[in-house]
Amino acid sequence: MSSASGTEIIAIDWGTSSLRAALMSPDGAVLERIASPDGIMFAKDRSFEAIFRDLFSGWLARYPRASVLASGMIGSRQGWIEAPYVACPAGFDDLARALIFVDLPELTRIGFVPGLSIEHADGVPDVIRGEETQVFGALAALGITEGVFVLPGTHSKWVTVKDSRITCFRTFLTGEMFDVLRRHSILGRLMTDTEPAGERGGEAFDLGCKLSAGGRLLHHLFSVRSRGLLGKTAPADLSAYMSGLLIGEEIREAKALMWAGAESQIYLVGRGDLAGLYRQALASYDIEATALDDSVTFAGLFALARTHRAQIEA
Amino acid sequence: MSSASGTEIIAIDWGTSSLRAALMSPDGAVLERIASPDGIMFAKDRSFEAIFRDLFSGWLARYPRASVLASGMIGSRQGWIEAPYVACPAGFDDLARALIFVDLPELTRIGFVPGLSIEHADGVPDVIRGEETQVFGALAALGITEGVFVLPGTHSKWVTVKDSRITCFRTFLTGEMFDVLRRHSILGRLMTDTEPAGERGGEAFDLGCKLSAGGRLLHHLFSVRSRGLLGKTAPADLSAYMSGLLIGEEIREAKALMWAGAESQIYLVGRGDLAGLYRQALASYDIEATALDDSVTFAGLFALARTHRAQIEA
Repeated sequence: MSSASGTEIIAIDWGTSSLRAALMSPDGAVLERIASPDGIMFAKDRSFEAIFRDLFSGWLARYPRASVLASGMIGSRQGWIEAPYVACPAGFDDLARALIFVDLPELTRIGFVPGLSIEHADGVPDVIRGEETQVFGALAALGITEGVFVLPGTHSKWVTVKDSRITCFRTFLTGEMFDVLRRHSILGRLMTDTEPAGERGGEAFDLGCKLSAGGRLLHHLFSVRSRGLLGKTAPADLSAYMSGLLIGEEIREAKALMWAGAESQIYLVGRGDLAGLYRQALASYDIEATALDDSVTFAGLFALARTHRAQIEA
Repeated sequence: MSSASGTEIIAIDWGTSSLRAALMSPDGAVLERIASPDGIMFAKDRSFEAIFRDLFSGWLARYPRASVLASGMIGSRQGWIEAPYVACPAGFDDLARALIFVDLPELTRIGFVPGLSIEHADGVPDVIRGEETQVFGALAALGITEGVFVLPGTHSKWVTVKDSRITCFRTFLTGEMFDVLRRHSILGRLMTDTEPAGERGGEAFDLGCKLSAGGRLLHHLFSVRSRGLLGKTAPADLSAYMSGLLIGEEIREAKALMWAGAESQIYLVGRGDLAGLYRQALASYDIEATALDDSVTFAGLFALARTHRAQIEA
């Protein structure tokens, strides 16, 4: 990574199922973007280096001294190189100090952002990889130093920040549970909607959210079948009903675990239909959230690159 | 069905994945048993009548006037003939009056036991088919008129009985959720034990049960992965840990919904390892259960046949 303060930055969000990247100017503006399906699970027989060269040789030819930083599962044991978990609480400085580098001689050097780990008081450990960069990006983009961040997804994350440090986070299996129940359980058999996972809202979704407040998930999930069998919910709405039960349950659990009350601001990081469902479910729990686009990742990588540069120059 | 009080009874528990039957003497003793894999989902291109003739022509040749009664999914829309749900509360009389019959000319007549339906105050409907006969069998076998019955399985049932009538029941998706998460989610990937679903107990199972008391299922399920990744639970014990989280959650929910406290007796209907796990999980919630073998089904069918006979003779 160049020590000149005036270099461009290539910021890469390289996850399990997709890759997004931005070429950023020295002042943090996004100049160009790449989106690709080359998530680490789809690499197949191509090396990560080959994918990297395919996607980024062009930018590097134009900006050979650009700093390159990657966050997400590419830095996991199943990725290119493992950037070991940093223990919570952790701030920008801790993450920047723990970057792991891979040299590609005569091309560039790539910094991989570590994930975070935590062990809760009840002995439950947790890990996060990728979302920490989104959260730091949100802090940088908004100029804030605290809040609770909700990052919906296959494994949803709730992250608490105080004094610009991640102090706590919890993972919820929500998205994956929706997917396996829909595809592989008897609950999916009566569903006739063809939308992708979790992208329907409306009344059935709301009903699921409201029921979730009782904390009876294993019982209420069976009602996806019984409501369908007895004609109480239309086949096209069963998926939305199940989604409401699951997202509502996540919010019920997270609210009890992580939310200090109305004085603590909630930020919802994500885009499109899934973010819309979470906003609807949060409202059903009387929580108002500030919406943030998930491109805050790039702001996080930019801030980390700058912090790292300051560290090596100090 | 013969009106003579002295006939034998062929009692058939014909479920989704298997069939068990008993030839019973006029006083209710089990003379012979059949167990077969001919559950309704394995019928394939054979008709239910063909399967029935294969299995029971022998007994009927010896006892042509035997009463024949079948409970379980064979009486559902996906079975031989639908015996419509009877609304709760319901007693022996209601079930016996709602039997649906199929005639096999010159062979016999088969009575199918209806399932039960209920709609709870929160608008959640529920259905049961097969377990109602087990519960009535338990009442008959023990000579009791009330209690809470726990019937573990793919879709676990908790059933409340007062004055010999089923007043309430709730279904929990426990067994199926264990199965789909183990086979199809990321949680199963680190598991190395080869035992079938839910048949391991021990410390990891206990830890799962204890955590379940917090009511944080979506969060704690992710810890099946994080504990595995971080070496906190051995790969061979992850399945037991997940089973503890799920069975524990069922008991937490059911206890709040259906258990009036220590004065209400809990009966655990089932056999083998799964019943053992439930006993261990119930103990973790300070609930002592009386164990009953699931062959009480035959006692239930016997009692229903006798009630039906009394009804047509009255």
